[in-house]
Amino acid sequence: MASMKKILECVPNFSEGRDLEIIKKIIEPFRAQKGVKLLDYQMDEDHNRSVVTVVGEPQALKVSVIESVGIAIDLIDMRTHTGQHPRMGAIDVVPFIPVQDISMQETIEFSKAVAEEVAEKYNLPIFLYEKSAKKTERQNLAAIRKGQFEGMTEKIKQQQWTPDYGPVEIHPTAGVTAMGARMPLVAFNVNLDTKQIEIANQIAKKVRHISGGLRHCKAIGIELKDRGIVQVSLNMTDYTQTALYRVFELIKIEAQRYGVNVVGSQIIGLVPMEALVDCAAHYLGLEDFTMQQVLEARIYA
Amino acid sequence: MASMKKILECVPNFSEGRDLEIIKKIIEPFRAQKGVKLLDYQMDEDHNRSVVTVVGEPQALKVSVIESVGIAIDLIDMRTHTGQHPRMGAIDVVPFIPVQDISMQETIEFSKAVAEEVAEKYNLPIFLYEKSAKKTERQNLAAIRKGQFEGMTEKIKQQQWTPDYGPVEIHPTAGVTAMGARMPLVAFNVNLDTKQIEIANQIAKKVRHISGGLRHCKAIGIELKDRGIVQVSLNMTDYTQTALYRVFELIKIEAQRYGVNVVGSQIIGLVPMEALVDCAAHYLGLEDFTMQQVLEARIYA
Repeated sequence: MASMKKILECVPNFSEGRDLEIIKKIIEPFRAQKGVKLLDYQMDEDHNRSVVTVVGEPQALKVSVIESVGIAIDLIDMRTHTGQHPRMGAIDVVPFIPVQDISMQETIEFSKAVAEEVAEKYNLPIFLYEKSAKKTERQNLAAIRKGQFEGMTEKIKQQQWTPDYGPVEIHPTAGVTAMGARMPLVAFNVNLDTKQIEIANQIAKKVRHISGGLRHCKAIGIELKDRGIVQVSLNMTDYTQTALYRVFELIKIEAQRYGVNVVGSQIIGLVPMEALVDCAAHYLGLEDFTMQQVLEARIYA
Repeated sequence: MASMKKILECVPNFSEGRDLEIIKKIIEPFRAQKGVKLLDYQMDEDHNRSVVTVVGEPQALKVSVIESVGIAIDLIDMRTHTGQHPRMGAIDVVPFIPVQDISMQETIEFSKAVAEEVAEKYNLPIFLYEKSAKKTERQNLAAIRKGQFEGMTEKIKQQQWTPDYGPVEIHPTAGVTAMGARMPLVAFNVNLDTKQIEIANQIAKKVRHISGGLRHCKAIGIELKDRGIVQVSLNMTDYTQTALYRVFELIKIEAQRYGVNVVGSQIIGLVPMEALVDCAAHYLGLEDFTMQQVLEARIYA
């Protein structure tokens, strides 16, 4: 067991969600590279998009990401791409997330190094986004992506949208790519014992940041028609500052005024251990507890 | 990152708690062995006893445990040993605990293999205890240890106390050793806002297994004099069956009848990730949640 291994997560989004053979080739570098582990990949036919989850040591991750990007450029042609999800490039977005023994600042530096090398090697324009963004208006991926692949040819020529790395023109078949460091997202849904979607919408509005709620929380109401209930669907964008239990308790309180109960919750996909340990520590009222008391954190530290 | 690494924890107790130089030599094999990690060692002068915590892959752990036992036999002489804690050998007890990708049955087999090799190599009598015990009366370490080092010369000759491995006479300087597989223990204390120790004692009695409480729970009342409060001090002997939140909630309920509140809790030492994730899942009402959704569990699986 090596001591103090730095680990990053990377969740590249590729604009191909229908041809499994192509996706298999794109993710092959993650399977082959020592020091990197492919955790998951999900293809979405309607979106025509695949989301890949890998973790690894920085240097090994860098090598495999660069290789995978090269394969995606070769195999995906955006000129013929259709799908429901907004997209601007063959490798649409490549977020890097600190997982173990690596700071956000190091992750930002890492993302810039990868972006620079990818831009140079493949002549691909790259925008730094989220925590790596050099300009405020580039923090938000949606703002960068506005206009999509079809609009990028012109958009990239505006001084405001000069790419951070690579040429000031789109890659003819691969478009442009966003890369950057971000906190892990936790997809967390809270279920309510009512059929009324308006109640879920109202509560979502109260707990989400944009309309006066918690700082690192996005939320919408969703109907679960087969179960005859609704849910507040949450995207927690920084659980280290906005803990899961806090939004959960707030939703319980807001639900009371509608005479509605919280009947359960769900975590979709992966969640960092610390996000749940924080909840246990809160509900048990743990005093002076540190993550260093978690056996697994010590084993792999 | 290798896939599916089996990991065991081992917490050997050595009957030397005063001479740091001796302990350093005894734990050196855990520092030197690749595939094994020394997490902690604590020396207790009054008890004249040291508790060492190591984790590792089975084969590597076996090699280092056997080596460490050999050094302890050379350096500890039980004929001159004094201390408050009951003890029967230089290497008093060696528990093995499944941590990752290894079953209790495998851990039992492993403990027997180590015991057999140690007994043969050092001519040391070994009793299998806890889950590895071949007889019911040997499950409990206190029953094996009764009579201590001084009484073992005679005890071991009784047919009922023939060792599971090794000679039917004590090692002249190292006595006898207990080895076996057990579940991880979680030391969990729940604090009450009262000075009355009788209340903590009464609640302890109600929640512990022996007097009608939860199956895998040991409990006593303790005064925290400097804080002017009392606590129910718990030893949770199988958190997979008796969850921490269950005893915590039960203590809250029992405390109510005395007009007393739970004001916090503490985890002493290390706790497996799953013990806390289970609590988070309970309080958040998580539906269909599995440990495979915890990022760290996937990274190291």
